[in-house]
Amino acid sequence: MMKNKSNAGIPKGFLFSVAEAAIKKPGRKDIALIYSAVEANMAGAFTSNRVKAAPVRLDIEKISSGKGQAIIINSGNANACTGKKGMEDAGETALLVARNLEIKPSLVYVCSTGVIGTPMPMERIRPVVANLPANLGKSNLDKVAAAIMTTDTFPKIVKKKVKIKNKTGIIAGICKGAGMICPNMATMLCFIITDIAVNKATLNRAIRDSVKKSFNRITIDGDMSTNDTTLIMANGMLGNHELKESSASYKTFKKALDEITCELAMLVVKDGEGATKLIEIEVKGAASEKAAEKAAFAVANSSLVKTAIYGNDANWGRIMAALGYSGIDFFENKAAIQLGSIRVTERGTGTGKDIEASKYLKNNKEIKILINLNSGKASAKVLTCDLSEEYVRVNADYRT
Amino acid sequence: MMKNKSNAGIPKGFLFSVAEAAIKKPGRKDIALIYSAVEANMAGAFTSNRVKAAPVRLDIEKISSGKGQAIIINSGNANACTGKKGMEDAGETALLVARNLEIKPSLVYVCSTGVIGTPMPMERIRPVVANLPANLGKSNLDKVAAAIMTTDTFPKIVKKKVKIKNKTGIIAGICKGAGMICPNMATMLCFIITDIAVNKATLNRAIRDSVKKSFNRITIDGDMSTNDTTLIMANGMLGNHELKESSASYKTFKKALDEITCELAMLVVKDGEGATKLIEIEVKGAASEKAAEKAAFAVANSSLVKTAIYGNDANWGRIMAALGYSGIDFFENKAAIQLGSIRVTERGTGTGKDIEASKYLKNNKEIKILINLNSGKASAKVLTCDLSEEYVRVNADYRT
Repeated sequence: MMKNKSNAGIPKGFLFSVAEAAIKKPGRKDIALIYSAVEANMAGAFTSNRVKAAPVRLDIEKISSGKGQAIIINSGNANACTGKKGMEDAGETALLVARNLEIKPSLVYVCSTGVIGTPMPMERIRPVVANLPANLGKSNLDKVAAAIMTTDTFPKIVKKKVKIKNKTGIIAGICKGAGMICPNMATMLCFIITDIAVNKATLNRAIRDSVKKSFNRITIDGDMSTNDTTLIMANGMLGNHELKESSASYKTFKKALDEITCELAMLVVKDGEGATKLIEIEVKGAASEKAAEKAAFAVANSSLVKTAIYGNDANWGRIMAALGYSGIDFFENKAAIQLGSIRVTERGTGTGKDIEASKYLKNNKEIKILINLNSGKASAKVLTCDLSEEYVRVNADYRT
Repeated sequence: MMKNKSNAGIPKGFLFSVAEAAIKKPGRKDIALIYSAVEANMAGAFTSNRVKAAPVRLDIEKISSGKGQAIIINSGNANACTGKKGMEDAGETALLVARNLEIKPSLVYVCSTGVIGTPMPMERIRPVVANLPANLGKSNLDKVAAAIMTTDTFPKIVKKKVKIKNKTGIIAGICKGAGMICPNMATMLCFIITDIAVNKATLNRAIRDSVKKSFNRITIDGDMSTNDTTLIMANGMLGNHELKESSASYKTFKKALDEITCELAMLVVKDGEGATKLIEIEVKGAASEKAAEKAAFAVANSSLVKTAIYGNDANWGRIMAALGYSGIDFFENKAAIQLGSIRVTERGTGTGKDIEASKYLKNNKEIKILINLNSGKASAKVLTCDLSEEYVRVNADYRT
């Protein structure tokens, strides 16, 4: 039986394989297979963009079964805006994998990330995909995380051990995505695998809730790329009683899952294209959580705020302006803004501590912006990063 | 009687004065006065940002009279988020001007642009403002246009002659604003003066409609800076019968006014911070004008589209992605995209003309993106510019 090259910290029964298909250019692994030795319960969350990539449309159909056994992922080509041929290509890829794994095609999920609008180079993908199953066990999760990268500068992996009664299960997550400066267009792919047995419906609710509190707090609600996908596979090889919301161990499982998605989300922001600083924006004292979130996102998405932080300029006026056009009701003369522990704005106007605050920006890579609207009790946190010249360079040259 | 230094093409009865108050830093004219020899009919449009600068709040109160005679403008400090003192400073500035011009304070409007959150340096502004009226006629409109600039790289002036029966009136407009890459936070100030007599209510409706079709087509509806202001003064010194919507010459007047605001809006985009290309986005075949506008703005505000155009990359996939998250209903497989005259997308997928289209981007400074949704008869045009490293540099260093 095939084995993992590196089993350390990997949930039981998962095997990996990576290969080079020279999808965008040669010289790197750009295709990966995640496989569970047994059929797993499966759930997912997908982009809300009206323009959905072919593999996303395929996976949305499949996921309704709540079952899966393999995920085939490629980087370099998003297979989006590729018309009928794109759907055929995604379907063929799933079929090839299924045939070689000797499993049902309905159990194979396909994910793509990369350039939009270019047909998949199937002549190069076909032979590689056909060979992937034979190499299962010769690779590991780290290599899968590296193979799915696009503009990412480092692979993103988070693992947690979870005690389920007298057994210890594992949840492992990998993720790609680095366009978070402009979150509404980044492609984020996230794959979570676990050997803990979780009920289908429970798994579905758990992953949706987890994504809402993590990846959706680093992106604008409803504004996603054509390819964003989070998939979770729970193969039950730990041998525990299938978890339901009412199970004693469910909270432990859910807490670990939330930590994984939140840590992966933070890694995505840290790797933001051209980013030099991680920025946490917390809005307190809002009338509702929705208002707090809206205000925090307006600040997080302001190019002027992001460039000011990049330039170590405690330009809180830009934060006030962003709050002003965020669309929420608030009173300018009640708002207080803090950069780190330095209060720069009180009752809507400056406290004269801009120089001190600029030093804080200069001396820290992780910046905290705390905004108290003093108009209620709700709060929300959003993560983003600064905006540098490098962001422009990365995105101006992406296809060349 | 005081005269204009350069009367060429300037509406009768308007005089100008500029001075240096070293508001942000010394070495440039940063304060300007526009004065009409007689009381004028006046109308305006102001930012919809909830956080409004002190002078904006002052002007909104005054404009309800429909009358005015002078506008005092400073650059370098926005007098926004400056609390009670900001209101006092704006009020004192108007009073000083009124006293020295020997006119009613209610006829003096105040406009500011520059850094948010810094108190006005009144000790330097007071003596300069007091002297401005004495120097009226020693300057001209060009110098006013230069004095109100912030990150603008050139002054923006447009003039038109308008035949009203047997007389020839003039409309002249000046404008500042250069942050249009990130339109929702740029401060745009626009001043239009004319010697044509226009009825108060008519003037008010005319300027609002004109702004809607020009400056609001280069910015997101409802997302404006703390200071955005357009003011129009019609002093009637041409001696024509006061124009109303029903007047024979009203259409001629309105057409010229629309041309002025549209040309000024285009100059603002051309001067976009760090911009190397002007981009016109036209969405056709939409179900409604609102949908067309929404789609065009989503594309216009996409950092990924803007960086691609900057890098001469015909990455139409990013345009499709932006349409997908714009929030409008449309069918991906009906959409056609043209760059210049080159059709890059048909029925939602590529035509294989990306290299040709990239050449078009490389060889042109004015780029046209035409999107046909093929789902209706409505259309809308929006102007924007590309996103370069220079934008980041300008905004990271703005206060230093």
